[in-house]
Amino acid sequence: MLGGLERALKTDPSLRFLVVGDQAVVEPAMAALALPAGTATILHAPDSIAGDEKPSQALRRARTTSMGLAINAVKEGQADAALSAGNTGALMAMSKLALRTMPGIDRPALTALLPTLGTHDLVMLDLGANTESDAQNLVQFAVMGAAYARTVLGLKRPRVKLLNIGTEELKGTDEIKEAAAILREADYLPLKFDGFTEGDQLSRGNVDVVVTDGFSGNIALKTAEGTARFVTDLLRRAFTSSLRSKAGFALSKPALHMLKVHLDPNNHNGAVFLGLNGLVVKSHGSATPKGVANAIAVAARMVRGDIVNQVISDLDEFRAHAFAVTSA
Amino acid sequence: MLGGLERALKTDPSLRFLVVGDQAVVEPAMAALALPAGTATILHAPDSIAGDEKPSQALRRARTTSMGLAINAVKEGQADAALSAGNTGALMAMSKLALRTMPGIDRPALTALLPTLGTHDLVMLDLGANTESDAQNLVQFAVMGAAYARTVLGLKRPRVKLLNIGTEELKGTDEIKEAAAILREADYLPLKFDGFTEGDQLSRGNVDVVVTDGFSGNIALKTAEGTARFVTDLLRRAFTSSLRSKAGFALSKPALHMLKVHLDPNNHNGAVFLGLNGLVVKSHGSATPKGVANAIAVAARMVRGDIVNQVISDLDEFRAHAFAVTSA
Repeated sequence: MLGGLERALKTDPSLRFLVVGDQAVVEPAMAALALPAGTATILHAPDSIAGDEKPSQALRRARTTSMGLAINAVKEGQADAALSAGNTGALMAMSKLALRTMPGIDRPALTALLPTLGTHDLVMLDLGANTESDAQNLVQFAVMGAAYARTVLGLKRPRVKLLNIGTEELKGTDEIKEAAAILREADYLPLKFDGFTEGDQLSRGNVDVVVTDGFSGNIALKTAEGTARFVTDLLRRAFTSSLRSKAGFALSKPALHMLKVHLDPNNHNGAVFLGLNGLVVKSHGSATPKGVANAIAVAARMVRGDIVNQVISDLDEFRAHAFAVTSA
Repeated sequence: MLGGLERALKTDPSLRFLVVGDQAVVEPAMAALALPAGTATILHAPDSIAGDEKPSQALRRARTTSMGLAINAVKEGQADAALSAGNTGALMAMSKLALRTMPGIDRPALTALLPTLGTHDLVMLDLGANTESDAQNLVQFAVMGAAYARTVLGLKRPRVKLLNIGTEELKGTDEIKEAAAILREADYLPLKFDGFTEGDQLSRGNVDVVVTDGFSGNIALKTAEGTARFVTDLLRRAFTSSLRSKAGFALSKPALHMLKVHLDPNNHNGAVFLGLNGLVVKSHGSATPKGVANAIAVAARMVRGDIVNQVISDLDEFRAHAFAVTSA
């Protein structure tokens, strides 16, 4: 984790860090790094949340754990964003309780980047913050996902699609059809709603933001991760199956490195709980320093793009128009 | 399609075919194949269902189209199973209307085989026959999926899991938790219920049957297909990126063929609408003769295993026990 700070500072020297953890562990690790003076401060936390701890248990220990104190630093304005590589469920529960949802947002959504064949990653949400979502939730996710694509990917008017089991207007659940009907009318929003997409299109690069409920989103994300691993496992088996293929692998290695880089989760690190009054970023648990630095860069772009207020003002716009239509 | 008949007959000479289609097209194609005398009969159908036709439209043309007449042949006992490579939505709607659901089954489920790292394919259902499923539907899918794994894969007591967004008992929707509670008690059924699984485990080979609602199932299936294609597309890019990698590819080609074979949908062909009073098998639209022959083999195994009556008697057993528990 701390190696990521060093790396992030090299790219962006204006960053400042509050490192929350057990002082006895963090201090020597920080000293070994020798970061420029004044770039990092330590905030002692006597305790930490375990990886397998239940969110309900974690909530009780917000005042003593590194996770709880990092989120509190965002709440108190001491930090612009919190970054954690810990227990996702606990991070979600503690963030929600401490920061509360933004005005106009009923539920936060776990938002992340997925690799594609296109020129940039895909923004996808919700990836599992909620089990069920209604049409209003999906519309809010679309607004939040578009704000993420604008601030993190630098897109002006992101193309947004709803994940469905077909692309015809009649397909899908009532929630999805209703969300599509609302988004189709909302052309004043800074996004281009482009209808439905299916699971096989996620990596094609023909959409910027894919919106779905947390259940389907989590299943799609994990199925994509599992399938990528499955194919690369088969590839490894194939390359090690004979002397000839081993020689072929040796020759192809530099080129295959491209594949590895493209699929490496460290290059798409920086999931975020959007919809809260403050930024909480989730890093992969096994992220390398490069992965952590990428997550920090995502957080910095969201802070500079003022994503929280962006979403709030987009939603204000949405409600103003929705009201105008209703009262017409 | 017809090339698949020839291939299937070579492996299993006891098969008999009723080929439903436009006589003017089918007759010369059959003559060119020169199948053994008496193995195939033609049933003339003046019309056919288009690939993009709406199910509601297709339903009105059941009496004149090849799809409608093939399903009707199953209903009338002239055929033991129908096989189609056509429009999935139309096939589902026409099959449901003509064959009706089995006693004890509320909704049919689209069931298919997915490749894994293990010794056999994974049985997964529902892959999109329904948009929503309640706990009873999920339990019925589990019984049907286990019967499929017994008759098609030859497993004695298939391991069945429910697809979820976590493996802890508290995770997921109410429907999933309720279905899990029912299945945990149903140890008299010829299946071993093994709790929850997640999207990243589908290809690991550690489960035989994965049960899910049609929405999540369709998204998982298509995401898996899309991701496999994504990784192989990246692989192709990598191999063609330099002369050196092209040479590496040439050397590795025989070994990489294994990967291609493992992922080839033709080797996992034979999706079926389980839960109807009759067997309707769906082939991939782009299946090769080998793929069609595999789908025919799956159909033949289900007919010989009497899967329809297997499912009916498993469900009778289930209801008898459920009643015994309720009235105790």
